[in-house]
Amino acid sequence: MRSGNTLDYFFSPRSVAVVGASADQTKGGYNLIANMLESFSGPVYPVNPGREEILGVKCYPSVRDLAGKVELAIVFVPAAAVPGVLEDCAAAGVKAAVIESGGFAEVGEKGKELTERCLEIASRTGLRLWGPNCTGLVNTDPFIFTPFMRAPKAHERLKPGNLGIIAQSGMLAAGFMFQYVLSGFFQVSKACAIGNKIDVDEVEVLDYLSRDPRTRAVVAYLESIERGRDFLEVARGMRGRKPLAVLKGGRYEEAARAALSHTASLAGSDEVVDGALRQAGVVRVHDFHDLMNLGKAFSLHPEPFRLNSPRGDGVAVVTVTGGGGVVSTDMLRESGLSVPALEKRTLEALSGIFPEWMPPSNPVDIWPAVEKRGLTVFPEVLRHVLDDARVDGVILLPFASRLLEYFPFEEVGRLIRESGKAAVSWVFGDLRFFGHYEERLREFGIPVYTDLRSCVLALRAYLQYSRAARGNRD
Amino acid sequence: MRSGNTLDYFFSPRSVAVVGASADQTKGGYNLIANMLESFSGPVYPVNPGREEILGVKCYPSVRDLAGKVELAIVFVPAAAVPGVLEDCAAAGVKAAVIESGGFAEVGEKGKELTERCLEIASRTGLRLWGPNCTGLVNTDPFIFTPFMRAPKAHERLKPGNLGIIAQSGMLAAGFMFQYVLSGFFQVSKACAIGNKIDVDEVEVLDYLSRDPRTRAVVAYLESIERGRDFLEVARGMRGRKPLAVLKGGRYEEAARAALSHTASLAGSDEVVDGALRQAGVVRVHDFHDLMNLGKAFSLHPEPFRLNSPRGDGVAVVTVTGGGGVVSTDMLRESGLSVPALEKRTLEALSGIFPEWMPPSNPVDIWPAVEKRGLTVFPEVLRHVLDDARVDGVILLPFASRLLEYFPFEEVGRLIRESGKAAVSWVFGDLRFFGHYEERLREFGIPVYTDLRSCVLALRAYLQYSRAARGNRD
Repeated sequence: MRSGNTLDYFFSPRSVAVVGASADQTKGGYNLIANMLESFSGPVYPVNPGREEILGVKCYPSVRDLAGKVELAIVFVPAAAVPGVLEDCAAAGVKAAVIESGGFAEVGEKGKELTERCLEIASRTGLRLWGPNCTGLVNTDPFIFTPFMRAPKAHERLKPGNLGIIAQSGMLAAGFMFQYVLSGFFQVSKACAIGNKIDVDEVEVLDYLSRDPRTRAVVAYLESIERGRDFLEVARGMRGRKPLAVLKGGRYEEAARAALSHTASLAGSDEVVDGALRQAGVVRVHDFHDLMNLGKAFSLHPEPFRLNSPRGDGVAVVTVTGGGGVVSTDMLRESGLSVPALEKRTLEALSGIFPEWMPPSNPVDIWPAVEKRGLTVFPEVLRHVLDDARVDGVILLPFASRLLEYFPFEEVGRLIRESGKAAVSWVFGDLRFFGHYEERLREFGIPVYTDLRSCVLALRAYLQYSRAARGNRD
Repeated sequence: MRSGNTLDYFFSPRSVAVVGASADQTKGGYNLIANMLESFSGPVYPVNPGREEILGVKCYPSVRDLAGKVELAIVFVPAAAVPGVLEDCAAAGVKAAVIESGGFAEVGEKGKELTERCLEIASRTGLRLWGPNCTGLVNTDPFIFTPFMRAPKAHERLKPGNLGIIAQSGMLAAGFMFQYVLSGFFQVSKACAIGNKIDVDEVEVLDYLSRDPRTRAVVAYLESIERGRDFLEVARGMRGRKPLAVLKGGRYEEAARAALSHTASLAGSDEVVDGALRQAGVVRVHDFHDLMNLGKAFSLHPEPFRLNSPRGDGVAVVTVTGGGGVVSTDMLRESGLSVPALEKRTLEALSGIFPEWMPPSNPVDIWPAVEKRGLTVFPEVLRHVLDDARVDGVILLPFASRLLEYFPFEEVGRLIRESGKAAVSWVFGDLRFFGHYEERLREFGIPVYTDLRSCVLALRAYLQYSRAARGNRD
């Protein structure tokens, strides 16, 4: 799984030293070594001059005592001690260091000096640096987990997935990890918290992920994009091939100022950023929640969908609630998608299923037909809707109740899969039936959300990405 | 609890007949009678010419056999039979009827005729009509639950609350009921699904709720507002006194068309609607999820907050994550709120708490101070921030982990309550700690959301509503 890229030393190191390992269970240095000893398959060396052993493993006073034995060092010592540690690393033949310590550029002049010293060592010795001021990275295959938060049995809980995550903020990256990754909201290939990114930056990481065969889609939270041109070039290379969504903070002056003090990065003019990202085929969002919801959508279906209409933006709403149809139609239109009138042959086919008094239209309100003939009308209607040449994607709006036990999941899932068209689903109603519904649709690669806004966001991104892929083929 | 208004017959009837009661457990008519027999404290009479008894209770062939005994009839028979039932009701001295049957104006000419006949009976006899094509209403005190979905022990599960809900769509109303009300997301005073609203309409219900002492705030989903002027007059009367949020569907042509076929109502020009609602002090939203989240916020704190700044729109972000501070600042600015620089005395006070290298600002990133001195800095910082005259509201951004066991809930909650200022909280991190966090803050009337967007939405509504209240006092 090594690609010959120097970032391999971070993602797939053969051996690791934890510098600043601690035996004190309240410290991050303990969490680090405990996580690594438990979950990393290669040799792990604790480094701490004050200890003989930690967790039953021999502890070394300095990385210099491990000459030739270590590929990656995880460094969690006070900022002032970091340059010395890096010199030790270089001297011992270490290839790469994840610096998790804070107290660098974000803390003023003294920190800037420290940063310069670290960079000087890197450029002199070839040692690659990740961070500082971050929680590092996670790779699910081969497994490595560097955050300084304790995550027992991380290697068993984190199943290998296809989503790459990049986050500039350490605490958020940790939040993403606990809330979305460890909980199974989606499954990641690699998660990267890049912090102050003084050496390895978002561009290099994105480029690595764009080439990584295990990564099929990427979501990124960034406070700054410094090498804008390079970033866009990588993004353009992914266009239509690997979906990419970006949350770029610091759009307003007050936020840009905060971004500066937080990770010492200058945010670019937001209008320029916005236009450039769009042109490069990047889906831009403005909330973490949206970014994670797109992560789920992309991860469930990273492949482009089959577009049928010339503009590739036609959505049909198949709903058991008239009100849901009305509101989702408003939201689809507002987001720039169209809710086209269905083809004549579709309407004729639906007329045969609907009660006589109900003329079919889009949104397709199937409740009267369900009342008349039961849930079997759901796939019947869906087949005709998916056959419609004006329809590129569908939103399903069922009602969660005991009735879902009779929902024809297999038929609905197969129809959608065979159509090659994009589909997302809202679920509302009795909470007890949400889990089963989501699980069954997930098997067919269909994301389920509890708010319509996320449905529309995901579907829009699906179609945007599929149009980009169509553009590539033209 | 009777106000002398004829709607009392719906919300607080002394006795109820269920016309169309069924013994077949797969039918709505069964759910209706089962719910009512179980949960209504007064006499309940099943009416069905084909049964001697239902659920052990004597069944009557017609409402006429109950002359003088029934105040409210719940009608769930085929549309064509409804006029006859209403004649029976009027003849038997029934005061009000909830018509839940579908098949009226929404199904074309024949339905329109039926509607006319019902209205003629109403105007001739004084019988008040609710619906048709709806699930009716819920009142939590005194208890009545008319939806035709089975909700066992509804009277035990639905604790009396302060939120009024109005929904034009039956299925959505049922969804709201199961997903938000029965699950305890918020607690309602009255929930009203008004369907085709041929007699009792949104204006009359809103007016009733605006006078109802148990209702302190209202959220409404409407597809149309037919008596616009009257609606706005009621809304203006609530301005600054009872918060009101409205989701008005049918903004775009395609959706308006769907609204027409769904509940047979004409949607007005959206721009006119939008401006008028804003002027009347109504908070408008565009997704159900947003409407429910505002319902939670309003229900937790229906009273206006103390505003400190001249414009009443200043927000401080108190955060453990720099990235969260950046993104929430962007979102606050985008939503029209300000994120002001703090007063000099506040900054000086915070300097004494923050590490030396970290100049305090807004967003207030307290993580370095927490690292240095523990979670006790949270209330210390918060006190100074709440004292700041430029701050009208705060967003709290903690990190959910085992650390929350040490979170000073009492102190934080008391500080916010005593300040009289608006507060909302995001929670992110380890899902296992979300429930406890939300529960503790709820005790102090502070809503917690898992997405920043909902935090910003709720805080903006809190401040909007408090400005309206300030306007009333001026």
